[in-house]
Amino acid sequence: MPNITNDPKRKSWLEVPENSDFPIQNIPFGVFLTKDDIITIGTRIGDYAIDLGAMQQLNYFEGIELTDDMFMQDTLNDFISDGKKTWRLVRNRIGDIFDNTNPKLRDNKKHCNIIIFKIDEVEMQLPVLIGDYTDFYSSKEHATNVGKMFRDPENALLPNWLHIPVGYHGRSSTIVPSGIPVHRPMGQTLPNGETQPVFGPSRLVDFELETAFITTDCNIMGENIPINEAEDYIFGMVLLNDWSARDIQKWEYVPLGPFLAKNFASSISPWIVTLDALEPFRTKSPKQEPTPLPYLQQKGKNTFDINLEVYVAPEKAKPTLVSKTNFKYMYWSMAQQLAHHTSNGCKVNSGDMMGSGTISGPNPDSFGSMLELTWGGQNPIKLSNGSERKFINDNDTVTIKGYCQNSQFRIGFGEVSTKLLPTFVRK
Amino acid sequence: MPNITNDPKRKSWLEVPENSDFPIQNIPFGVFLTKDDIITIGTRIGDYAIDLGAMQQLNYFEGIELTDDMFMQDTLNDFISDGKKTWRLVRNRIGDIFDNTNPKLRDNKKHCNIIIFKIDEVEMQLPVLIGDYTDFYSSKEHATNVGKMFRDPENALLPNWLHIPVGYHGRSSTIVPSGIPVHRPMGQTLPNGETQPVFGPSRLVDFELETAFITTDCNIMGENIPINEAEDYIFGMVLLNDWSARDIQKWEYVPLGPFLAKNFASSISPWIVTLDALEPFRTKSPKQEPTPLPYLQQKGKNTFDINLEVYVAPEKAKPTLVSKTNFKYMYWSMAQQLAHHTSNGCKVNSGDMMGSGTISGPNPDSFGSMLELTWGGQNPIKLSNGSERKFINDNDTVTIKGYCQNSQFRIGFGEVSTKLLPTFVRK
Repeated sequence: MPNITNDPKRKSWLEVPENSDFPIQNIPFGVFLTKDDIITIGTRIGDYAIDLGAMQQLNYFEGIELTDDMFMQDTLNDFISDGKKTWRLVRNRIGDIFDNTNPKLRDNKKHCNIIIFKIDEVEMQLPVLIGDYTDFYSSKEHATNVGKMFRDPENALLPNWLHIPVGYHGRSSTIVPSGIPVHRPMGQTLPNGETQPVFGPSRLVDFELETAFITTDCNIMGENIPINEAEDYIFGMVLLNDWSARDIQKWEYVPLGPFLAKNFASSISPWIVTLDALEPFRTKSPKQEPTPLPYLQQKGKNTFDINLEVYVAPEKAKPTLVSKTNFKYMYWSMAQQLAHHTSNGCKVNSGDMMGSGTISGPNPDSFGSMLELTWGGQNPIKLSNGSERKFINDNDTVTIKGYCQNSQFRIGFGEVSTKLLPTFVRK
Repeated sequence: MPNITNDPKRKSWLEVPENSDFPIQNIPFGVFLTKDDIITIGTRIGDYAIDLGAMQQLNYFEGIELTDDMFMQDTLNDFISDGKKTWRLVRNRIGDIFDNTNPKLRDNKKHCNIIIFKIDEVEMQLPVLIGDYTDFYSSKEHATNVGKMFRDPENALLPNWLHIPVGYHGRSSTIVPSGIPVHRPMGQTLPNGETQPVFGPSRLVDFELETAFITTDCNIMGENIPINEAEDYIFGMVLLNDWSARDIQKWEYVPLGPFLAKNFASSISPWIVTLDALEPFRTKSPKQEPTPLPYLQQKGKNTFDINLEVYVAPEKAKPTLVSKTNFKYMYWSMAQQLAHHTSNGCKVNSGDMMGSGTISGPNPDSFGSMLELTWGGQNPIKLSNGSERKFINDNDTVTIKGYCQNSQFRIGFGEVSTKLLPTFVRK
């Protein structure tokens, strides 16, 4: 089954603005609510949202084996369960239907009216029901920065870090799509120099710039996924802002890891960009020294060149770019993460989400959190409206953008944009 | 709505063996598969499984507001969502129908044949779809023992432990009911005295004696549950064996906590015993010194007197009792755990599961893991067949039992019994 949708010469009969994240070569998958309050699975080309449920009802997927209501659902889990062959058949078909040489839908105004919406007429939803959420910690630069600040500057990287894609379990129930505001959490913290903790609003709310991948059903419990098969079980990627409360984290995290410091909210971009769409941007991971154990060894290009940006905007002010980095800096690849995750027989299901961990690059302006960018608040960042930030203030909006770019086209994720509301107060 | 089902004088027209965990005062909830391959929600009295789906179809819940298919489902999540008032109405009604003064079902042989099964004719399933699984660490004795062995014997308890019900996120996808065998996990470990890790079968597989509670929908994201309301959101409890691979844990757990050492399997008992059923066994928690912060303060009797036992049985040998302890030793109560969990606005849903953490009592024979019972393998345990155990061997079966007992009756959980199979080998 060739992955023909990436053909750079292909153009769509739908208008695609210059530098759009969503040319006909992308074809991501998401779930949206129409203005008629109908929830459906869809894709996006340019600034148009396309109703795949309606396309299926109107027979545009004829010849592809799909259950009758495959796209008339409120999550992508069942579609993702169908596996890579089906994903590719459907993505290729969509590319074909919207190709500017194909008049079939283009010239059927009635069908166009049923299938195609302007993007600002629909409301994006969480694309999958996330059963389990795992967050890794796979940026060497991030782990080093945090180790320097929280532990020992001389031995910032813990002994296991170069041998294991370190990860931990997160909370699925508080993963929300872009656009849903989140509250500053309350929590228990130990003020500097004190021995008695206090309870109140977190003073150090931070973003974490991450990506995440969404899996299909991988294995039966007890079995592992070999590293050379791992990518076949990855449906696609999203942007992830893994909100963090640094003061809560510092006090609670020993010995079992971060908990309430993280589980108040995690925000994701709503369109899942398939690994097939990212294929032209494949690149090499950093050299791994020491060589990992055999179950984690890979050859070739195992990661993707994805530009990442973070913007912070105070209320009614313009956004300021505070970080610019790239997914390719990650030390451990997604395949290594997934092979490690299942190496003990842990069952991975359709719709599970695995975060990369904070993505920090080598330079101070490429760090993936305020904690690192301001070095624990020592060097505040100046925003375009003149105000300064050590961490995120109430009513600030944090936006993460991500895209791949070559000389021929751009494949992007859109954004995950989230306003931080003040602490919830019970009436 | 009075909780009338606990009346100690009540007897059922169904035979209940002496010392059964399931007298008519219990009425737990579970999900089972009948020999006709029908999955249904049910309860248990004595050694009988009772099909609540069939009871509903035959109108035995008339007058209670329930959706038509409430009990004809493969999980209890929807029923649990209905809230405490409905749980109590249904439990009271079941108690009434099976009361030996009530002839309605008793004298209807046709209905009895449809509704009542012998317990060994049905196959117990996971009772809920567990969205998120959190595991606490709330036994002071356990935290102290582990701190002594893994960290500093002089400062075994970390500074936050007396202020926070420390917890972390577990993996939902590998929670299995009693009777499902689990494989010894493979994993990365650092052999003693070495600097290079190795990959292979874990050598130190352990049980953890725990209980867990199942929640109903608690809050909207951003809101907290005040401590004095927390118990209203707890549907009931199960026994939990939180399997652990100590050698994997030791190498991987810094700084983000246990991951692959735990997520290969967690086994639970299949019947959820309601807090209403446990009410007669309410007792005081240990005195908390220092006094917790106000959001964690409670008065009165906040825990339950539940006897707990762990048995280990080699293949074809009789089980040996290796630990005998009690839930009442836990330092932090379930209400404190849930209030803390939601204190940052973390959303808790129907069917979420929260583990107590390993339940160790004050005496060496009341410790809740082999790690503690053998003190890291230094003092092997002798089993009844003459063999010794430092940890759990392949083909051993670990069984946890739990029950409350007073002079009038016994309310029990049955058991969670799990065989440890050898490491899975790919063919």
